[in-house]
Amino acid sequence: MESRASPRPGGLSYCVAFSQLLGLTVVAVTGAWLGLYRGGIAWESALQFNVHPLCMVIGLVFLQGDALLVYRVFRNEAKRTTKILHGLLHGFAFIIALVGLVAVFAYHRKKGYADLYSLHSWCGILAFVLYVVQWLVGFSFFLFPGASFSLRSRYRPLHIFFGASIFLLSVGTALLGLKEALLFKLGTKYSTFEPEGVLANVLGLLLAGFALVVLYILTRTEWKRPPQAEEQALSMDFKTLTEGDSPSSQ
Amino acid sequence: MESRASPRPGGLSYCVAFSQLLGLTVVAVTGAWLGLYRGGIAWESALQFNVHPLCMVIGLVFLQGDALLVYRVFRNEAKRTTKILHGLLHGFAFIIALVGLVAVFAYHRKKGYADLYSLHSWCGILAFVLYVVQWLVGFSFFLFPGASFSLRSRYRPLHIFFGASIFLLSVGTALLGLKEALLFKLGTKYSTFEPEGVLANVLGLLLAGFALVVLYILTRTEWKRPPQAEEQALSMDFKTLTEGDSPSSQ
Repeated sequence: MESRASPRPGGLSYCVAFSQLLGLTVVAVTGAWLGLYRGGIAWESALQFNVHPLCMVIGLVFLQGDALLVYRVFRNEAKRTTKILHGLLHGFAFIIALVGLVAVFAYHRKKGYADLYSLHSWCGILAFVLYVVQWLVGFSFFLFPGASFSLRSRYRPLHIFFGASIFLLSVGTALLGLKEALLFKLGTKYSTFEPEGVLANVLGLLLAGFALVVLYILTRTEWKRPPQAEEQALSMDFKTLTEGDSPSSQ
Repeated sequence: MESRASPRPGGLSYCVAFSQLLGLTVVAVTGAWLGLYRGGIAWESALQFNVHPLCMVIGLVFLQGDALLVYRVFRNEAKRTTKILHGLLHGFAFIIALVGLVAVFAYHRKKGYADLYSLHSWCGILAFVLYVVQWLVGFSFFLFPGASFSLRSRYRPLHIFFGASIFLLSVGTALLGLKEALLFKLGTKYSTFEPEGVLANVLGLLLAGFALVVLYILTRTEWKRPPQAEEQALSMDFKTLTEGDSPSSQ
């Protein structure tokens, strides 16, 4: 019954669509918050700061989350194509996040503010450094042709765990940054249910919701990508590597 | 080769020990922060507020995390005993967290502060309500004798996913609360690397670290609890329920 091109499991498409709706809403609400209450975005003025939250949300939240979902969405495409897409999405996320980081450091320098004193900045730098290390190690193990199947199969669970952890740390850092931006500007007015505070709280819940939906799609065992025919032919090691059941087992 | 009492996988014990060391350090550093910089703890004074962070960290971070690890630590004990311990730990966590919640609402009332305006409070109330619902649904499905094996096996992955999500949401909420407490008191002094700010940042990283170590132990496939002989005899459905491999398959 099980054909080579395995059908998409019921529910996966709806969940992926929901994750994209949530993710795009997160980006839109971030833009709306910055436009309505923070004066919009520009590189050459005090508005340069606003480049930071927008870039980090697009790069290290939305695109990073989508990069994690690539193997669930592209189930029947060649493994190599899917890998390249996964790596490219993470690459775009990295570049956008880098612009966001440059923006905040440049803004701090212009204003004479201290760098890297807050919990938000500590978590953020940790997430960014781990992100770069994970990308480089992932590239050398999975895209560079040198690594053996057994080495890949041993590293793969760690790559997945660290990928999910860095994504969660990124979302947590975004929540801390949002809170920091609110308290610096609103102060005690935050407790009077100012419209900006309420909008930012909703944005915070949407961010947490996006993270949990991505995590749900990633962790549902039956939604994992089945091994393709070409992969099964490559090596028996692939059974361990992909952790999937062999369709021909008895 | 595989005996009924399966040996503890290599590395699991070290990881569990490390998680406990981290968890206890989190509790100790929270106590040190409140003692050194916030005047300690008391119920009948302005110090009542400090009951809140301590109780939430002990209940919804440390004990909740440990409750999730019960099935990894007690691998060869009867399933029912392990379940009761899991439910009891969550019960203790709930009671301690409830004391923490009462403390902050009572403190707000005394001071005339508004309730539930911040992202920290929205996330916290959401986490607490989900925690209670998860406990009640878990109790009725897994400890109350009415639910069938197939119903349990279908609910089980959801229970695990929501358990991990509520735990992550709780840790995220703790980070937001910590940041809020720092910014309210330190304000712009936070950027001068005040000792309290640095200690609280370290506490934030320890909280995130504890969450990730618990998540790592939970998600390592080969560390999952193997089905016991008594369970295998109960129903073939248990194979689906526990998602473990049947040792006698061929």
